Amino acid sequence: MKISEIRVTPVAFRDPPLLNAAGVHEPWALRTIVEVITDEGLSGLGETYGDLDHLQKVRQCAQALVGVDVHHTNEIYRRIDTLVGDVVSDLHGLTGVATKEKSVDRVFATFEVACLDIRGKAAGVPVVDLLGGRVRDAVPYSAYLFYKWAGHPGEPDDRFGAALDPEGIVEQARFLIDRYGFQSIKLKGGVYEPAQEVAAIRALAEAFPGVPLRLDPNASWTVETSIWVGKELDGILQYLEDPAVDIPSMAAVAANVPMKLATNMCVVTPAHLPPALEQGAIGVLLLDHHYWGGLTRSAQVAALCGTFGLELSMHSNSHLGISLAAMTHLAAATPNLTHACDTHTPWQDGQDVVAPGALRFADGAVPVPDGPGLGVELDRDALARMHEQYLACGITSRDDTGYMQRFEPAFSTRRPRW
Amino acid sequence: MKISEIRVTPVAFRDPPLLNAAGVHEPWALRTIVEVITDEGLSGLGETYGDLDHLQKVRQCAQALVGVDVHHTNEIYRRIDTLVGDVVSDLHGLTGVATKEKSVDRVFATFEVACLDIRGKAAGVPVVDLLGGRVRDAVPYSAYLFYKWAGHPGEPDDRFGAALDPEGIVEQARFLIDRYGFQSIKLKGGVYEPAQEVAAIRALAEAFPGVPLRLDPNASWTVETSIWVGKELDGILQYLEDPAVDIPSMAAVAANVPMKLATNMCVVTPAHLPPALEQGAIGVLLLDHHYWGGLTRSAQVAALCGTFGLELSMHSNSHLGISLAAMTHLAAATPNLTHACDTHTPWQDGQDVVAPGALRFADGAVPVPDGPGLGVELDRDALARMHEQYLACGITSRDDTGYMQRFEPAFSTRRPRW
Repeated sequence: MKISEIRVTPVAFRDPPLLNAAGVHEPWALRTIVEVITDEGLSGLGETYGDLDHLQKVRQCAQALVGVDVHHTNEIYRRIDTLVGDVVSDLHGLTGVATKEKSVDRVFATFEVACLDIRGKAAGVPVVDLLGGRVRDAVPYSAYLFYKWAGHPGEPDDRFGAALDPEGIVEQARFLIDRYGFQSIKLKGGVYEPAQEVAAIRALAEAFPGVPLRLDPNASWTVETSIWVGKELDGILQYLEDPAVDIPSMAAVAANVPMKLATNMCVVTPAHLPPALEQGAIGVLLLDHHYWGGLTRSAQVAALCGTFGLELSMHSNSHLGISLAAMTHLAAATPNLTHACDTHTPWQDGQDVVAPGALRFADGAVPVPDGPGLGVELDRDALARMHEQYLACGITSRDDTGYMQRFEPAFSTRRPRW
Repeated sequence: MKISEIRVTPVAFRDPPLLNAAGVHEPWALRTIVEVITDEGLSGLGETYGDLDHLQKVRQCAQALVGVDVHHTNEIYRRIDTLVGDVVSDLHGLTGVATKEKSVDRVFATFEVACLDIRGKAAGVPVVDLLGGRVRDAVPYSAYLFYKWAGHPGEPDDRFGAALDPEGIVEQARFLIDRYGFQSIKLKGGVYEPAQEVAAIRALAEAFPGVPLRLDPNASWTVETSIWVGKELDGILQYLEDPAVDIPSMAAVAANVPMKLATNMCVVTPAHLPPALEQGAIGVLLLDHHYWGGLTRSAQVAALCGTFGLELSMHSNSHLGISLAAMTHLAAATPNLTHACDTHTPWQDGQDVVAPGALRFADGAVPVPDGPGLGVELDRDALARMHEQYLACGITSRDDTGYMQRFEPAFSTRRPRW
């Protein structure tokens, strides 16, 4: 079953002004949608970043994959490895250091997912069954809270409203939990001085007793500040995400705080695992198939985490339904996934390239789609509309920092900031 | 595609008197052949150890797997994990320590291989394609040399003749290389005092210049003896296999010899990997899907080895063609398999449960079978004949030591012996 054609379509969708250490989300978020079509007529879907340099690599590699059998992922990887000769600049500074290996894995991942979608359809089984079968029928996700403005400057307020202090964060949590049933909460930090973010976590703990809580400042803190926060939140945080900037700093924090540290920034490619384990830098890996080389390689990394006693959750960037489906299939097949996963899905507020019905939240979890493959189908009208939005929106690479500086010219992404 | 029936058939085949640290191979070697049959009529093959306690566990678990979908290996593993409640006693002391995890993995592996055989047949692709596709068209194996008697006591000499000294070992190597084209050589040691085995390696190096050489004494040596051998064979051995008995001893050897150490004894289950890596005990893992939990889990361990810079080869016990096919598919899909694999195939001298034609050696390598699934089919007459041999031979568990002691009552398996 050989690849006969690959269609690569960049899309844009509305995104609220979510604040983070790098700045603020622009009004449009970008993704790239990949359709792999085979000589036997079956096709499969992949979804990846929309940033221009990445999009160009995806397009270049797509041409080189025509003629390859969808099972031959080793050959697909080899061809991409040859083409992605250099480090592709990393995305917006929130997913850790860019390396050659990570650059290849990021491009490969989207094609691998599409090939699994095809193989699942051919076998008449969901992708979860190509990964060992489900160990859970639904995958729990967390309420992913952000400090945010009421709306983009110059536009009306959005439906989510402002969240600029602990009270706003609690209100946002209540909105998301009422709507989706989430049973874990993650707060994106690194926005305000640490004391306010500690206060926000305390307010969440009070408002939602017993609900697991996490805080992720995206490496904005010094080792000293990280240790201070860790001690302040003893017994309150389930884990602390990426407080400090690299493996040695994380190790220094880990040795002095009571909770485990999680990362999707200092360990983002296999080469980072040996030093992180040797130094005891992390206790939880936030897996992300978009940069860990697709579902099969992510499953291998998950197995490695089991071997070394690392706990597992999943990281998310702004994404659409193809990615949510892929994450859900992988998580459902991963016995040692120990924590609810992250997702930005609520912030896309119903916008999607996949036809409605296949994906839904029940009690904060997404039931594994039953259909063959990923179990989602393209909504071609939506794809066309979102591609038009891409062409019209004027954004070709995510730039949270530049957008923030239009309103706060003195804004800096200096890390550590506190 | 659900499992409707599983047939479990123990078989016996003639085995020459091969010497090792545990004693000498008995006249009959045992294996268990597993046929998994689905409700859609497709069936798949697995092959595993024949020892009675293991056979009983395989039979018990086989009954518990009826009704499970062949994709649902997580569920198959879960059921086996429940049934294999205790450590199953290990086989003949040559594959390392027995643990609960390894006991489960050993039983699981054979069913996993059979399920992949079925999935390959259903998809019309060879098993290698379910593991990422081939990175090599043929898998190199090594000439696996043994000290041996001319024949079993009381029987005529076998066609391989005696090999009781360096000259006999060189002659045996020449016989196997002439017949199979092997381009690497492994000598099973731990039989004679280390100086003779060093002399045998030196004789092989002289007779086959440039051919990679390995020596495997099955943990018969003290740390001091291991270091002495290692230094004696500097520049001559590709790697030294399991000279000492456990991870700390191997680490002590590794720090003081010039070549890498390989193991299939002190690292035999995922739990052994972290301490072995931390202590620098090994440089090469000899993977064996029969006890690393089948092909997919072995591929995960192979990926882990790549992440940590461990080199890879494969271990072998006496086996038949189903196992050779499974090993070949796995090895063909493993990019970081860095050395020729071990196989006992020459010693089975044409005896097999699979129909002739699918498996052959060319220049010391086995071309990946082209057919769907494992690409081998049962020879039912051979299976019936070899099952009759099992019933008649009187052996139910491998006992190299007891057999040796019938001829050398003072023989001891004390380790370290030298």
